[in-house]
Amino acid sequence: MTSFADRHIGPDESAISTMLDAVGHASLAVLAEAAVPESIRQDDVLVLPDPLTENDTLNALQSFAQRNKVHIQMIGQGYYDTITPMVVRRNVLENPAWYTAYTPYQAEISQGRLEAMLNFQTMVSDLTALPVAGASLLDEATAVAEAVLLMRRAVSGKEGGLVVLDAECLPQTIAVVEAHAEAIGLRLEVQELDEDWTAPEDLVGLVIQQPGVTGVLREPEPFIEAAHAAGAQVTIACDLLALTMIKAPGEVGADIAVGSAQRFGVPLFFGGPHAAFMSVREGLERQLPGRLVGVSVDAAGKRAYRLALQTREQHIRRDRATSNICTAQALLAIVSSFYAIHHGPDGLRAIAQQVHNTAVTLADALAAAGVRIRHEHFFDTVVAEVPGGADSVLARAAAQGINLRRVDDDHVAMACDEVTSLDILDHLVEAVTAVKRHSVYTAPRVAIPRSQRRTSDYLTHPIFHEHRSETSLMRYMRRLADRDLALDRTMIPLGSCTMKLNAAVEMAPISWPGFARIHPFAPSDQTAGYRDMIAQLEGWLADITGYAAVSVQPNSGAQGEYAGLLAIRAYHRDHGQAERDVCLIPASAHGTNAASAALAGLRVVVVATAPDGEVDLADLHAKLAAHEGRVACMMITYPSTHGVYEEHVSEVCAAVHEAGGQVYIDGANLNALVGIAKPGHFGGDVSHLNLHKTFCIPHGGGGPGVGPVAVAEHLVPYLPALRQTIQRPAELRRRGAPVSAAPFGSAGILPITWAYIALMGHEGLTRATETAVLAANYVAARLADAFPVLYRGPNGLVAHECILDIRPLAKSTGITAEDIAKRLIDFGIHAPTMSFPVAGTLMVEPTESEDLCEIDRFIEAMLVIREEIAAVERGEIAAEDTALRHAPHTADAVVSDSWDRAYSREQAAFPVPSLRQDKYWSPVARIDNVHGDRNLVCACPPVEAYAEQG
Amino acid sequence: MTSFADRHIGPDESAISTMLDAVGHASLAVLAEAAVPESIRQDDVLVLPDPLTENDTLNALQSFAQRNKVHIQMIGQGYYDTITPMVVRRNVLENPAWYTAYTPYQAEISQGRLEAMLNFQTMVSDLTALPVAGASLLDEATAVAEAVLLMRRAVSGKEGGLVVLDAECLPQTIAVVEAHAEAIGLRLEVQELDEDWTAPEDLVGLVIQQPGVTGVLREPEPFIEAAHAAGAQVTIACDLLALTMIKAPGEVGADIAVGSAQRFGVPLFFGGPHAAFMSVREGLERQLPGRLVGVSVDAAGKRAYRLALQTREQHIRRDRATSNICTAQALLAIVSSFYAIHHGPDGLRAIAQQVHNTAVTLADALAAAGVRIRHEHFFDTVVAEVPGGADSVLARAAAQGINLRRVDDDHVAMACDEVTSLDILDHLVEAVTAVKRHSVYTAPRVAIPRSQRRTSDYLTHPIFHEHRSETSLMRYMRRLADRDLALDRTMIPLGSCTMKLNAAVEMAPISWPGFARIHPFAPSDQTAGYRDMIAQLEGWLADITGYAAVSVQPNSGAQGEYAGLLAIRAYHRDHGQAERDVCLIPASAHGTNAASAALAGLRVVVVATAPDGEVDLADLHAKLAAHEGRVACMMITYPSTHGVYEEHVSEVCAAVHEAGGQVYIDGANLNALVGIAKPGHFGGDVSHLNLHKTFCIPHGGGGPGVGPVAVAEHLVPYLPALRQTIQRPAELRRRGAPVSAAPFGSAGILPITWAYIALMGHEGLTRATETAVLAANYVAARLADAFPVLYRGPNGLVAHECILDIRPLAKSTGITAEDIAKRLIDFGIHAPTMSFPVAGTLMVEPTESEDLCEIDRFIEAMLVIREEIAAVERGEIAAEDTALRHAPHTADAVVSDSWDRAYSREQAAFPVPSLRQDKYWSPVARIDNVHGDRNLVCACPPVEAYAEQG
Repeated sequence: MTSFADRHIGPDESAISTMLDAVGHASLAVLAEAAVPESIRQDDVLVLPDPLTENDTLNALQSFAQRNKVHIQMIGQGYYDTITPMVVRRNVLENPAWYTAYTPYQAEISQGRLEAMLNFQTMVSDLTALPVAGASLLDEATAVAEAVLLMRRAVSGKEGGLVVLDAECLPQTIAVVEAHAEAIGLRLEVQELDEDWTAPEDLVGLVIQQPGVTGVLREPEPFIEAAHAAGAQVTIACDLLALTMIKAPGEVGADIAVGSAQRFGVPLFFGGPHAAFMSVREGLERQLPGRLVGVSVDAAGKRAYRLALQTREQHIRRDRATSNICTAQALLAIVSSFYAIHHGPDGLRAIAQQVHNTAVTLADALAAAGVRIRHEHFFDTVVAEVPGGADSVLARAAAQGINLRRVDDDHVAMACDEVTSLDILDHLVEAVTAVKRHSVYTAPRVAIPRSQRRTSDYLTHPIFHEHRSETSLMRYMRRLADRDLALDRTMIPLGSCTMKLNAAVEMAPISWPGFARIHPFAPSDQTAGYRDMIAQLEGWLADITGYAAVSVQPNSGAQGEYAGLLAIRAYHRDHGQAERDVCLIPASAHGTNAASAALAGLRVVVVATAPDGEVDLADLHAKLAAHEGRVACMMITYPSTHGVYEEHVSEVCAAVHEAGGQVYIDGANLNALVGIAKPGHFGGDVSHLNLHKTFCIPHGGGGPGVGPVAVAEHLVPYLPALRQTIQRPAELRRRGAPVSAAPFGSAGILPITWAYIALMGHEGLTRATETAVLAANYVAARLADAFPVLYRGPNGLVAHECILDIRPLAKSTGITAEDIAKRLIDFGIHAPTMSFPVAGTLMVEPTESEDLCEIDRFIEAMLVIREEIAAVERGEIAAEDTALRHAPHTADAVVSDSWDRAYSREQAAFPVPSLRQDKYWSPVARIDNVHGDRNLVCACPPVEAYAEQG
Repeated sequence: MTSFADRHIGPDESAISTMLDAVGHASLAVLAEAAVPESIRQDDVLVLPDPLTENDTLNALQSFAQRNKVHIQMIGQGYYDTITPMVVRRNVLENPAWYTAYTPYQAEISQGRLEAMLNFQTMVSDLTALPVAGASLLDEATAVAEAVLLMRRAVSGKEGGLVVLDAECLPQTIAVVEAHAEAIGLRLEVQELDEDWTAPEDLVGLVIQQPGVTGVLREPEPFIEAAHAAGAQVTIACDLLALTMIKAPGEVGADIAVGSAQRFGVPLFFGGPHAAFMSVREGLERQLPGRLVGVSVDAAGKRAYRLALQTREQHIRRDRATSNICTAQALLAIVSSFYAIHHGPDGLRAIAQQVHNTAVTLADALAAAGVRIRHEHFFDTVVAEVPGGADSVLARAAAQGINLRRVDDDHVAMACDEVTSLDILDHLVEAVTAVKRHSVYTAPRVAIPRSQRRTSDYLTHPIFHEHRSETSLMRYMRRLADRDLALDRTMIPLGSCTMKLNAAVEMAPISWPGFARIHPFAPSDQTAGYRDMIAQLEGWLADITGYAAVSVQPNSGAQGEYAGLLAIRAYHRDHGQAERDVCLIPASAHGTNAASAALAGLRVVVVATAPDGEVDLADLHAKLAAHEGRVACMMITYPSTHGVYEEHVSEVCAAVHEAGGQVYIDGANLNALVGIAKPGHFGGDVSHLNLHKTFCIPHGGGGPGVGPVAVAEHLVPYLPALRQTIQRPAELRRRGAPVSAAPFGSAGILPITWAYIALMGHEGLTRATETAVLAANYVAARLADAFPVLYRGPNGLVAHECILDIRPLAKSTGITAEDIAKRLIDFGIHAPTMSFPVAGTLMVEPTESEDLCEIDRFIEAMLVIREEIAAVERGEIAAEDTALRHAPHTADAVVSDSWDRAYSREQAAFPVPSLRQDKYWSPVARIDNVHGDRNLVCACPPVEAYAEQG
């Protein structure tokens, strides 16, 4: 029967044969041999089980899920059970139109998700009462770390100043921030914020957690005033649900607010993925890390959305980077914004009220049973004093199927959420008191200090009021989805991004309760399924990459890099070479490489690129010599960011090792290696992978991502530690700094990658790689006459992507790579990567999932575009008058009764006849980025603005 | 917190207040009092539980599902476990774009699902080797009944002839066909088709089941030849999967093929919904019952699909009806066609081969263990001889989690399917022999007689080859979905069809294994969850309608009617009044009323309609007198098909009762009654409901439907019997003829209705009804000046729908109701019901789910259209030159470089400014129905035809 690999891989046998003919090789294997230097080719097969059928894969994952126990989760500590409204789950979380979309760099074909993210920003801004919010960060812990860095940047003249973390901060936040601070030499202290607290004179930043991890609600104003008086900035780590009832950070004077939007409808997922948020006061908006959606206008003067303040990722200024944040949590941010739209401000407040009532009722029932409650003021979390009895209380609760949090020997915390039922309160009282009882519940009261109760409005924008019926919400979701081009309608041939099939069978399991409803800090005996699955997955990934071990903790590729670099630094330090702090990076590297190095406390030294695109060996040797004894590592990407298998990679690795450095091989291009070559075998000490590239986790419109770090044996002890009851020796050995809040990062989506590997097996994975290489070479062969291919490797072949050089044409005609990218929208095709790694070029990566029909559709479009450029070359039309320059064309423009363009309406809309059916119409014309950055608007425009649009 | 009712009902408080102002009533309750005659209003509240939250509803349904035991299903008998490819499940079965679509009467906005159904027809036609297949029937048993009727029609000059059913027919088929035959006095016999069989001289039709219910494969040619020689027609009930390996009905000379497409990816669903099919030889195509998709051309000469040979439902010729089939199983037919496209002919054959190998291996293992196997030739089902031991074999198998079929005391049948694993063969051998063993499996052989092996090709059309990669298939599904307008994009204000919200929370549970993977004939102790849920649902529906009991067995409204009429006939017969055979039907009734009456063996007598739309009481009394002693019943619809609450309904009912007749109240318009009035209380003896109208089962693009029949106490014994192990007294009491193959009909979708009622409760349901009535009156009030409202009831109010009379305008301008319907497509709005119940009118039913914004969008469109008509009235433009006549407008037409219309492009495409964003473009221009019916093409056009299109 047809195997899954046959369905995952687009071209069938006959198509592959056609494509091989075009590139002039006899078979996939022969092509791979010609393209990949022999020195790096692996000679073993991957030690993977035989491929499973789709049905067996679901059964296998079902057994893992069944070995996770779905308890009532009252652990809190930043994670709460929540109800994903089914209309959101079905139409967004489980809808390929949303989850297969790419990051909205091509703003014109991303208006739907950009609007949804703008809704998210508006929601966060409103609830935190701070004017500008970004479009999500990876998790709360790293969001606090980013806030700490931002506060330091915002305070001038206090070099070497101190940052103070509230002792009520979440423990995972403290651990992650400490690691960040340590790496860059930032002074950090954890302090109790009590009546006696005074702001140290050298304070640059203060982070307050409100409500605190023990649930306590304090008056933050005195601490904020003191910190401000000392010239410091203040961040409040807050809770969106609580903010419907308590005063917002902006209302009590904070400069920055951060937190997690998880409990707004995003499943627990054993820790992630969830969307974290950050909002800032006026004056800090241009310092925000991560992505920011802004409002601008298009060529017709119509409102349009796009990422603000960014040329690609504006904050990733290589070694001057202030953050390495790149991947966001777009899909989860969008889910949480739809949760808010579904419930509206009144609905959210009603949920908060119910949660608070439950907590108060619980506290009163406990008090009535003679239990002392630690805090008078709280929102959702009750801490009971149980002198010496915490363990037995937890055990009794667990026996009732309820998880609580052990604060210390003498205290247990019980966090209430949207699904906490009053029915279980008797069980809780019984667990605490060890006496069976039926409590009498009195009328709930408010346990929020009067001074901290919120009286201001929020979510007043119509968007949070208009779609309260499911019919209306469903249609709004559909309308937004229809504005966007995702993988469910077009190939997304984005070089370096590997937009391949996210198969439905891979996606289905993530919504199962056995995966979705597990708290990240649930006891180990309740998570055996997850832990076994993850251990197996880490093993498979280690085999595929040729390393000793893998950690799935990093939530993005950049975070994986960061974890890998921390491991390298720690290794040198433990081996008496703490002075090794130089990180060599080729000029053509991804910007995140340098940014991560900077955040890991390394000095970046750039190695030149030779004219053929390879690392300049002479310059490498010169740099190694210049920094003798100081070289910590070199970071290379393989195949290179130029999309070729560099011939001299082994020499490069050897030279760095010779100099006492470690070799970091960026796994962004692993889709060209799986089954063919192993970075850990041809010279790498560390790599990170991008599961959202090579391993089928969908891009989700800009996130989630998963960026596991893989290391050689000597670096295993430096893998991120797991802050959880540890049971296995392999887990115990990992003692590195944690890089994300949750022990296993975005555990909830790991079933996707597990399924992909289980479905493909060694043969399928290898064939996928070979087909991806074939597809890129086919595109190069078919398009080379029209657009020169900039770099080629051995035997004139590219790897899994190819760079089309537009600069000569741009010079001769004025038509730019951007014009071509926008014109492709008229063909219903997502543009290739624009101007990376070389300005003025397009980098095309078809991946193995696109069938020949779709690849040919792309090639046809590019050739038609080339003809349109030829008309400019021939002087028949000026560049500024062409359809290329005016692209993309909206229906509104093309249908207009007044048409005065130099080309016909039909050429504008239907440059190839097949477009006459099932045409995708760009919802906006070309967007004016400068206008948007000059007039920064990052929340839903007011209603009057809509009226103006007519 | 916001209740589900608040989300199901579109207008919020403020909108309701606006709408009440427009109709001039103070509150919903006051409006209902004014609209509904006091004599029929109920004064009790519905005895329903308090409404559940969405989460509690899922939990409650989960408990039902958990009490169904998911065994390995080897019962066979027409139902087989199957794997729904996840890509099909996610993108079709769980995608509102597919399941919320209406029947494709408006062909222009239904091109996607019409193509999918054409694929289904092509698949059936190819596999059965008969040239014309229809677009699905309700289930295999009723498909055989339809085939029997068709054979009778096709044979002339043999009045009173005999139909013979193969004794190898499925028992449920025999039961259903016998009931049909009995009702219309058709002679029917069940005969063993063995060597000695000869065709009776008066034979009109022969039905052969191949493979037989015991799995046997025979040579059908001798029987077919004999039957043909006797002048009879022959039907083969067949199995699509088997047809990939055995000779097709068309190849052995059959005239008709029928069967179920269930095992092509449609879950067992405890019996339904599944798509049955029928295909016929040349010459019979115009006699096909049910819907038939055909190919035609649009106004621009481009290929376009639409329902062929139909003005609405061409076969429902009232009392001359040849069938009452109306609802089909569109969604399930589409799922099965995508299953075939996903697997392709080679994939299907590989599945069949695997199933056959498993069966042969099982047979050989049993034989090796000394067990006698009943048949030498079989496809997937093995019958073991177990003298006197059937019950213990079944018990031993059940203990291993395997369900087998008890043929008789001495035989058990084991049916293999796509999921049957070789791993369980040992368990089977052990169950049969009662000896624990490890069998040695020999190489499989072929147990299909050489003469019956298929050698011909099938599924050669490119559509079954082009989308074998998941990426390509996903995009094809998206492309088709995008061509259609369903509830996820527009209101569908179809009078008499009640297109309301199908909430995601209602839909989610149907895919759960505890509901999806239950065989309809699984032992009762494995189906307690289903049976409890159904009993509760039947109870709720009985309460809502005011009857004593409800049966959910009928698979459509028409089938519910038929069941109700059979109950009336049986009641009269049992009470010594078998001569009562007259069914009175008002002139304005649904066509199905008369068709069902004809099929139930009743004579239809039409009662006139008075000018005000009500039943003409004088004519009624005249007809009752004329047919004294012969009146079986009267069928009325309430509110009437004119959409008004008739004042004299109680008098009508009383008069019929007085005359000894029963009153049948068609529940098609129940959405105007729930919580307000109960048909069973104001005069009805029987009603059927349409769960796909009032109770949220989605229309699925033309099916499934569920049409429960509700009866008063004296008719309860005549409810359809349940052919299954019966345990409950309430079930035992039902002794009527079965009307569908499965005991509980389309059980698999009943959780949708259960959820709806559980979520809404009494208050929610009543408010929904009142809001639906308000919405219709609001539309009537806003549009009455532009288009006269044809009928009104008490106080000038309509019920839940209103008829807009286009005839005066048509007379004065030539612009027709059809022009308006097609012009609405340009606005992205689905047309109201056209020319039913009155030719030249539009019937508008907004339902309670549409919010004011969407209702106003519709009203705005109608008013703009009225202005366009006014231009014709003023003589500014000829009717044939208007945008109305040329509607709908494709992008291709409007963008065309040559535009010579009398109106502008912008008026064509953007008659209101809001259309400039998110515009829906009709994929074809107006379709030429006459051309299609003259040139009947009902399978995918050959590739050359595509090439011609360019």
